[in-house]
Amino acid sequence: MQNYFGYQGTILRVNLTEKTIKKEELNLDDALKFIGGRGLGTKILMDEVDPKTDALSSENKLIFATGPLTGTSTPTGGRYMVITKSPLTGTVACSNSGGYWGAELKFAGYDVVIIEGKSEKPVYLNISDDSVEINDASFVWGKTAGETTAAFEEAHGEKVRVATIGPAGENLSKISGIINDRGRAAGRSGVGAVMGSKNLKAIVVRGTGKVNVNDAAMLKEAFSKSMAKIRENGVTGQGLPTYGSAVLVNIINENGVLPTNNFQESYFDKADDISGETLAEKFLKKKDPCFRCPIGCGRYCETDGIEGSGPEYETIWGFGSNCGVSDLSAIIKANYWCNEYGLDTISASTTIAAAMELYQKGYIKKEDLEGAPELVWGNAEAVVEWTKLMGQAKGLGAKMAEGSYRLCESYGVPELSMSVKKQEMPAYDPRGIQGIGLNYATSNRGGCHVRGYMISPEILNLPQELDRFATDGKAEWTKIFQDFTASIDAVGLCLFTSFAMGADDYADLYNSICGTKLTGNDFVEIGDRIWNLERLYNLKAGIDPSEDTLPKRLLEEPISSGPSTGHVNKLSVTLPEYYKARGWTEKGIPTEEKLTLLGLEAFK
Amino acid sequence: MQNYFGYQGTILRVNLTEKTIKKEELNLDDALKFIGGRGLGTKILMDEVDPKTDALSSENKLIFATGPLTGTSTPTGGRYMVITKSPLTGTVACSNSGGYWGAELKFAGYDVVIIEGKSEKPVYLNISDDSVEINDASFVWGKTAGETTAAFEEAHGEKVRVATIGPAGENLSKISGIINDRGRAAGRSGVGAVMGSKNLKAIVVRGTGKVNVNDAAMLKEAFSKSMAKIRENGVTGQGLPTYGSAVLVNIINENGVLPTNNFQESYFDKADDISGETLAEKFLKKKDPCFRCPIGCGRYCETDGIEGSGPEYETIWGFGSNCGVSDLSAIIKANYWCNEYGLDTISASTTIAAAMELYQKGYIKKEDLEGAPELVWGNAEAVVEWTKLMGQAKGLGAKMAEGSYRLCESYGVPELSMSVKKQEMPAYDPRGIQGIGLNYATSNRGGCHVRGYMISPEILNLPQELDRFATDGKAEWTKIFQDFTASIDAVGLCLFTSFAMGADDYADLYNSICGTKLTGNDFVEIGDRIWNLERLYNLKAGIDPSEDTLPKRLLEEPISSGPSTGHVNKLSVTLPEYYKARGWTEKGIPTEEKLTLLGLEAFK
Repeated sequence: MQNYFGYQGTILRVNLTEKTIKKEELNLDDALKFIGGRGLGTKILMDEVDPKTDALSSENKLIFATGPLTGTSTPTGGRYMVITKSPLTGTVACSNSGGYWGAELKFAGYDVVIIEGKSEKPVYLNISDDSVEINDASFVWGKTAGETTAAFEEAHGEKVRVATIGPAGENLSKISGIINDRGRAAGRSGVGAVMGSKNLKAIVVRGTGKVNVNDAAMLKEAFSKSMAKIRENGVTGQGLPTYGSAVLVNIINENGVLPTNNFQESYFDKADDISGETLAEKFLKKKDPCFRCPIGCGRYCETDGIEGSGPEYETIWGFGSNCGVSDLSAIIKANYWCNEYGLDTISASTTIAAAMELYQKGYIKKEDLEGAPELVWGNAEAVVEWTKLMGQAKGLGAKMAEGSYRLCESYGVPELSMSVKKQEMPAYDPRGIQGIGLNYATSNRGGCHVRGYMISPEILNLPQELDRFATDGKAEWTKIFQDFTASIDAVGLCLFTSFAMGADDYADLYNSICGTKLTGNDFVEIGDRIWNLERLYNLKAGIDPSEDTLPKRLLEEPISSGPSTGHVNKLSVTLPEYYKARGWTEKGIPTEEKLTLLGLEAFK
Repeated sequence: MQNYFGYQGTILRVNLTEKTIKKEELNLDDALKFIGGRGLGTKILMDEVDPKTDALSSENKLIFATGPLTGTSTPTGGRYMVITKSPLTGTVACSNSGGYWGAELKFAGYDVVIIEGKSEKPVYLNISDDSVEINDASFVWGKTAGETTAAFEEAHGEKVRVATIGPAGENLSKISGIINDRGRAAGRSGVGAVMGSKNLKAIVVRGTGKVNVNDAAMLKEAFSKSMAKIRENGVTGQGLPTYGSAVLVNIINENGVLPTNNFQESYFDKADDISGETLAEKFLKKKDPCFRCPIGCGRYCETDGIEGSGPEYETIWGFGSNCGVSDLSAIIKANYWCNEYGLDTISASTTIAAAMELYQKGYIKKEDLEGAPELVWGNAEAVVEWTKLMGQAKGLGAKMAEGSYRLCESYGVPELSMSVKKQEMPAYDPRGIQGIGLNYATSNRGGCHVRGYMISPEILNLPQELDRFATDGKAEWTKIFQDFTASIDAVGLCLFTSFAMGADDYADLYNSICGTKLTGNDFVEIGDRIWNLERLYNLKAGIDPSEDTLPKRLLEEPISSGPSTGHVNKLSVTLPEYYKARGWTEKGIPTEEKLTLLGLEAFK
């Protein structure tokens, strides 16, 4: 086998139906064309899983993919992604997670793990360098993520890293995720349910190898340059390290775009009670940084005897203002139970918000609650208890565990679900931030902020200030942000580095480790290729471009109070411009010319 | 019992001879007069331990003291101190540590633990809220700090916090410390040997209480103000978070004051190989922050299968340039073994440097090494192996475990020990930084940088730039830094906050929590009181002011190369000015007037 740099050169293929384990050599052409992680994983999905496949059938595959920079000394180089067909959205799913598991998988010698088929009984995969075993998992089935992780540390030594589903994934909740390192999550799009459908409880990894570097002197220089930029940037050098992602609570609220009461309002007068500043003052126990992260935004909080990682900004918003809740202690508890049951915090919290609106409007009746806390705005106990009931799939909680769209649809009012392509939108009201709305509408995995974080230019003025109420130029900016992000995901670094680093910086790091010779423009263009491949997968899956939209509320009902009063999202203006910027037809279909240009002619 | 704020109101007194455990009410007058921690601990030592006591006899006491802000939501509020009479220096010892143990002790309900007497057999103290037990420790005697901590987590649950000695403390090494939370150390002045002399292996703590706050609204404001300053300061907001304390390696070397080869030189041409930047690039696994720390300078590194907390700047310097070593992997290993055996990294590394000079000059012969790695400059293997031999007290290692002064003295050349009052000096050459030399010479616990970190104004230009080669004004600055630091230690916060925070900020935090009404000036003046009390203890112990000096090399031999070439330390100029600034006699004795002014008349 050739000597690899950055990549380890090996894909691990595990068939749970046949109980077979194969080690295949990485196709380096594919790797270089799609970089790795999200890009390479989507290419494998496209090659191997028919887009029409039922996401929870044994024909779907679950792909754990690292980037070439995962497990290296690059800043934040510890990420992995889970690529599969989503049971929540029906689109391609790609959920990205930090912590330590991804780097450990690289150290064990693998770039990618492909899980195929379905086991009859609960199993887990135990990877220890060259040794790979499929083992009985009945002793941890039904256990929470924390309990499961502790059990594997007991069984295999405390140095193992564990990625596991909780009871929510076992119950096939469409808003369940995969939890690694106790409190990090590949959270979105129901990837936990896919794992549960295969009766795979966990992947336990221990690796003692290293990742080869092509040019150590070049890496040293690229590393120093990137580190200096991260250190000197206000967001990565000050805001995030000091207050975590929750530093955004007050900032977003002051702009009048902090969705409140299921997006019925956009300003929360008790925002400061749930801010990063208050979190730091009252609940923070320590920082909880990921592998080799110079930013260290991760928090570790404690309240009333419960302690664990998080909460992140979006979680605080979801269980907080979006449910009218100002009790930060309750939010920390709800976050804790999401991590334990393996629920996505954004979808879980916004589904409770949707349930609260259904209750407010009389669709859900008091008797439907079966004695559980009342679903009224501001009920702190409700967000904690209903999170547990979703995790346990009990009573109405079982229906809610399918996500807000299916919940609202079951009452005949799907428009009350604040989702795109059935996935819940995060914590930024698109009525007061035009670009983020376009990004939500066009994201290839449904409602999502981390496909193209337009908050960066529209609110944080990075890399430059854009008028958040204007539509001009937002299509082009959104495209660039989406492409750039796809490449950052693919390479295995954290999106937060992009507040400080530019395309050339990523290219320099990638080139020094892998021996490639990409320019910054090349790097972003690969993101364009990944984006179009994801779009093709979705089109083949039957996702119509008419789904590139936002909930009617955001297009038609102006914000009624606060600093963004009077605004709606003008998607009808930006969407056609976006299709054009993408080089797609006016109906949102990639042209043959565009696909050829991107080297995607095989997938036309 | 009255309702306490900040303080918990209880001192735990444990007599190991009698096997008695008493809970005494805190004397609040003493607490307010000396704040807590270092101040209150020294007051108790003065009251209860005759300064002439043999430090390793059962008459000495070991005092674990928290500050009123320990365990609160103030930035870095997690520190504790160990106060005792030092077996290394014969002076008062006060070693300060971070991590989580100190906060846990507060949560258990105690401000201070006083250990008296001596157990016949190895024991440990197990504190779980109200329950306190003296238990048999024979099952962990002889074990390293990491092994011991793991054993107690196994025995008492993973939430316990453990402060323990390693084999070095058991062996009564005069450079042994106490290790808490696996990789944090109350390291200096041989406090581990005092613990070992009492046959006390560890104090295991679990606490579930809280610390009362007097004025929550005032705390919120004071907290926000301090956090903003920490975030916006270049050192606490950028340098330390990104590269840890090792960010100093290149800075100090570029000023030509990085002691090399046991202070024979002051510039190390391979400094970048052991810099914080290289550490981050090649060995950093994650950040490893202390309780509630917004700075997060702590590192966690891995090399060749060894991983753990650190190394800090002084450790890197000590095992690195001061031994001529440029192999960062070896430094990480030596640091690891210091933490495991419970050795102070500064004294351990500089004792190896002294041994290398003794070997260079023929005092130590090759046959004395008994086959262990040769003590020659730059021998990476030697720093690792001799650390282990000191930890195990094997061969020449047993003699080295007494510290560099006793080692060099045994060969008739005590002047080769780079120490003050027999304690090894840290990583800044006083010939090129006049103020730090004065601070070393006058530090109440011997050679030490954290009694008054003059590097801040003389190198980092904080709070303002001082000419490092000048002597003018250094006496007054040194006094202020010493006093200010004593108060910060006493209150229970980390010295690193003082790069960003001023006296008023600490007073505001203290007042809001304790309900006191101190001004910033009052706060610093309490430091003056603490400093003078320590001085009185040392004088009564028989430490003559003639020991307020530096090794002859630093006073007489000019630096021979690099940016500080030609300079010596001018202590003969600054010391008389310092005595005067302190209001002491020209012989360095506190006057009666001064003591009365400070409310120390009882100790004249």
